[in-house]
Amino acid sequence: MDYKKESLKMHEKWGGKIETKVRVPVDCREDLMLAYTPGVAEPCLAIQKDVEKSFTLTRRWNTVPVITDGTAVLGLGDIGPEAGMPVMEGKCALFKAYGDVDAFPLCIRSKDTEEIIRTIELLAGSFGGINLEDISAPRCFEIEKRLKDDLDIPVFHDDQHGTAIVVAAALINALKLADKQLDKIKVVINGPGAAGIAIAHFLLDMGVKEISMCGRHGLIAEGDEGLNPAKQEIARLTNRKKQHGTLADAMKGADVFIGVSVANCVTKDMVASMADRAIVFTCANPVPEINPNDALDAGAFIVGTGSSEYPNQINNVLVFPGLFRGALDARATTVNKEMMIAASHGIASYVGSKLSRDYLLPKAWDKGVHQAVAKAVAEAAIKSGVSKNK
Amino acid sequence: MDYKKESLKMHEKWGGKIETKVRVPVDCREDLMLAYTPGVAEPCLAIQKDVEKSFTLTRRWNTVPVITDGTAVLGLGDIGPEAGMPVMEGKCALFKAYGDVDAFPLCIRSKDTEEIIRTIELLAGSFGGINLEDISAPRCFEIEKRLKDDLDIPVFHDDQHGTAIVVAAALINALKLADKQLDKIKVVINGPGAAGIAIAHFLLDMGVKEISMCGRHGLIAEGDEGLNPAKQEIARLTNRKKQHGTLADAMKGADVFIGVSVANCVTKDMVASMADRAIVFTCANPVPEINPNDALDAGAFIVGTGSSEYPNQINNVLVFPGLFRGALDARATTVNKEMMIAASHGIASYVGSKLSRDYLLPKAWDKGVHQAVAKAVAEAAIKSGVSKNK
Repeated sequence: MDYKKESLKMHEKWGGKIETKVRVPVDCREDLMLAYTPGVAEPCLAIQKDVEKSFTLTRRWNTVPVITDGTAVLGLGDIGPEAGMPVMEGKCALFKAYGDVDAFPLCIRSKDTEEIIRTIELLAGSFGGINLEDISAPRCFEIEKRLKDDLDIPVFHDDQHGTAIVVAAALINALKLADKQLDKIKVVINGPGAAGIAIAHFLLDMGVKEISMCGRHGLIAEGDEGLNPAKQEIARLTNRKKQHGTLADAMKGADVFIGVSVANCVTKDMVASMADRAIVFTCANPVPEINPNDALDAGAFIVGTGSSEYPNQINNVLVFPGLFRGALDARATTVNKEMMIAASHGIASYVGSKLSRDYLLPKAWDKGVHQAVAKAVAEAAIKSGVSKNK
Repeated sequence: MDYKKESLKMHEKWGGKIETKVRVPVDCREDLMLAYTPGVAEPCLAIQKDVEKSFTLTRRWNTVPVITDGTAVLGLGDIGPEAGMPVMEGKCALFKAYGDVDAFPLCIRSKDTEEIIRTIELLAGSFGGINLEDISAPRCFEIEKRLKDDLDIPVFHDDQHGTAIVVAAALINALKLADKQLDKIKVVINGPGAAGIAIAHFLLDMGVKEISMCGRHGLIAEGDEGLNPAKQEIARLTNRKKQHGTLADAMKGADVFIGVSVANCVTKDMVASMADRAIVFTCANPVPEINPNDALDAGAFIVGTGSSEYPNQINNVLVFPGLFRGALDARATTVNKEMMIAASHGIASYVGSKLSRDYLLPKAWDKGVHQAVAKAVAEAAIKSGVSKNK
């Protein structure tokens, strides 16, 4: 099947992938008196007295917008806010189907960091959490950071942390099969964009000691020209000796390669130069850094990709529905490291006895995994003290 | 039944009056490839090429936010954005149940006119139309005007025009029974707020010649101290001789009294002083300007109120679901006078042979009336040249 052609046809036929559903009867005078005027004045006044009641008297507790400015949509780049909406809508459908989260898509017609932050802050009283989506780097770092600082509801930029969490889940399971330890491995990450930087931070949080972060000119080091602050910071954290070298140099002897970069930038020789039982996650979309079959030919022990065409799809659809379900259930005031690490382990352990080199991760349409993630995340929120539940 | 107590209880039980519904299958790998990645890239690119396609390839064509700043919620005043949300949610439920419009509630944490305008403009690419709600006067005039000027989708402040349209519908039918003509009657409007001013403009648009607009100190005239620009303008349009006088003075000999003001400001004597077959719409909520039974006692021919406790409830729930349904169906670029007048006549004529002094207007939960309004509005949009449908 030609998925692109078919998808366009289906989108025309669907005319939208989500809609509003009414949860209350409005079929007679009495119904209206309760759900609308005059009765509705009472919950309004209750919220006026105690804003926290907006989480019980309206749908706020379960409502999350999927917000983009359309600047980094899929691998398509800056295609504009409206053009990003089919992705946002799709995400909303997955939020509901897999996490029972009431999501709705919003696009913002601005590329100005301050204006995007202000817009979302002004709307935050409508929501129980906020999912940022497909906002380009480095703007996305500042936007997420400021919103997290200013708001008391979970804020999550999926392109960063969703990717990091699912990559880490895949890595946890791959290391089990390769019989290696997180704190002993050498990891190369290629692509210092939003996802790559988030993966690096997250693996450091999880206990990885040695990470080589590469850009288009090879290893990045603090002080290199043209690095934005986020790149400078991750270079400082990962490359203490300020070494330089090509991607090929970095991959020599590495245990793990994680590509979130561009098509065909890795050769079979480069994979062959890696350590024994090498793990290769080649996640560039739609065309990976190296064809997964070539990577296996070159001696890789385990290969994962960003695509559903091969085994081991490393798909952040495994993350966001359950993560928000758990955060909302706990009435968490933020998404912290503990919750993200819990999500990774929740995904990894759900695979259970099915684990094999061809089956690193659960399937996204298996609803059980999202429930497992939700449970792990809610528990972590409570344990780490960010739950408002009594 | 104590509707306030019961409504609070039900809101706690409901935990939200609307939710998201998924319209596409997401149960297997192939489903995801069509509704999400990689297939979704194709509709994204189609919209990038032609933004108008966002109206066919996403739910935009049917999506309307109900937006408030929480400054004029019901009769409760400025209770804050979150506290307004039970009303917004209720409205969304009615939008969907009666008009099949996919609505979702948004509150804005700002009272700054420019900031509210900018926020809504930045989000407009997400929507097929915009319903403004419970924003206080005079800010609401500027906000609506600017949004109408700047956006090419329907923008509608329901508190102004929804009220005006349904009052006009009630008046059309009342005049049939009283055997009077729109262009011959003398109308007194009490309460120069958002609703009162909109009613005055709309009745002028419909052909009423003589309107007396009263505020708390009686008749308002251009040049009076303390009048905001909207009040100055309506004073200029209605009171050319710059007359002054009390509400009681204005009501002497009037054919129609329309109250959108405060409780108990009209006496039986004032109603008794009106013309023969007087029409009294006493819409203050929750307590009307005069008890409807007192008004009838004093000789009123027809009485309507804002409440469902009496006959002839003048309820803007009769307007917005069908009006937006029609505007969206026509892919109207605005809501113009022609569409609003069509909505009034659509409501009025739907009553048909049931028309009586106790049955001026259809019931809001009769879905047929919303279909009739939608049809009338869509036809008016096409006829007046604001439909983008080919």
